[in-house]
Amino acid sequence: MSEFEVTDRNRLMRYPKRASYDRAVIYPIIDEALVCHVSFALDGQPFIIPTIHARDGDRILLHGLKGGRLLEYIEAGNPVAIAVTLVDGIVFARTVFNHSMNYRSVVLFGRGKIIEEPAAKLAALQRLTERVIPGRWDEARAPNEKEIKATTIVGIDIEQATSKCRQGPPGDDGEDLEFPVWAGVLPTPIVPQAAETDPKQTAGFAVPDYVKNFNPAKR
Amino acid sequence: MSEFEVTDRNRLMRYPKRASYDRAVIYPIIDEALVCHVSFALDGQPFIIPTIHARDGDRILLHGLKGGRLLEYIEAGNPVAIAVTLVDGIVFARTVFNHSMNYRSVVLFGRGKIIEEPAAKLAALQRLTERVIPGRWDEARAPNEKEIKATTIVGIDIEQATSKCRQGPPGDDGEDLEFPVWAGVLPTPIVPQAAETDPKQTAGFAVPDYVKNFNPAKR
Repeated sequence: MSEFEVTDRNRLMRYPKRASYDRAVIYPIIDEALVCHVSFALDGQPFIIPTIHARDGDRILLHGLKGGRLLEYIEAGNPVAIAVTLVDGIVFARTVFNHSMNYRSVVLFGRGKIIEEPAAKLAALQRLTERVIPGRWDEARAPNEKEIKATTIVGIDIEQATSKCRQGPPGDDGEDLEFPVWAGVLPTPIVPQAAETDPKQTAGFAVPDYVKNFNPAKR
Repeated sequence: MSEFEVTDRNRLMRYPKRASYDRAVIYPIIDEALVCHVSFALDGQPFIIPTIHARDGDRILLHGLKGGRLLEYIEAGNPVAIAVTLVDGIVFARTVFNHSMNYRSVVLFGRGKIIEEPAAKLAALQRLTERVIPGRWDEARAPNEKEIKATTIVGIDIEQATSKCRQGPPGDDGEDLEFPVWAGVLPTPIVPQAAETDPKQTAGFAVPDYVKNFNPAKR
């Protein structure tokens, strides 16, 4: 683990105290998020795509971009920016001005390559599956040749990244602390609910432990 | 309510059946999301910023961009793309290939203007506060002149938008339905937890009902 280089591209300009450039801070945030957003632009027109992701070392794996604008853009060697954002809570300050969110977010910059070789594609698919839902790969039906061909996987090499986090109680101070209103934080985590079995299930399989105990923050 | 014009910019290319261009579908998704992601590019380098937002008719309000790259970019009349994404569940198919997420997402395109006039800024701040946490504006200390000056608010006029949603059980079919593994959906909603009172609270105020009963999907 180590720090990313800081340049004008990834330096946090607002609230620089909330920034980190350390992989040890950044990578757990990337790994906890269930989705990311990919930003790119064609002829000055920005686009944005939400998608699932998995990190593999200093690389982000994306899949399923076939036939879209983004794939062509990445193939041409162009840079993307990717964000993941975990919303931890709503910060209720005494003053409207100090209202905020508690969050952990990462923006990373990189360029991608399509992973073409079938064995590498299969390994990337395994990584994607296991990152999102550890334990599933061994139980589900593995991709066959046709499915592997129909899947596009891109690896984005992370060139730079920045995390920005806010945690803790509201930032009111001075005489505002006396203002007569409740202040505090409302935590807003993702909390998985009871699993819903597919109505097409043909036999009575128990809900696996990796589904029952799924916790986005611990996987 | 009505449909947005569909052009090459906002036409959904992958899974077009999952698309809608109807404000009646799109606006509730925007309103439920606690954060959005704003995509823009400078000299071909994409950037992305997570931030809170509020919708006011056909306009998205953003605040707190002062001193950043995005504000300058918007001021110059450049287009942005904004995404909101609600992750509703993880879809466990029998085949690795059919694994998916249930989600409701929107991508919108527009251009912004800074809201400069103090009364309009105050109205926009009220809208932002009430959209995120209905009921709070009347109880918190209102912004003073200095705070209003220190706040930058941008209104983005929505030119086009597209929603993309997936809901329901896994899409396995044929002989895969016999594959011996549990299949179904794990719902992954945001579930607010017990509010944490600010340790600096100087008197025993009760947690307000709008905090206790906060529900991202109903506000």
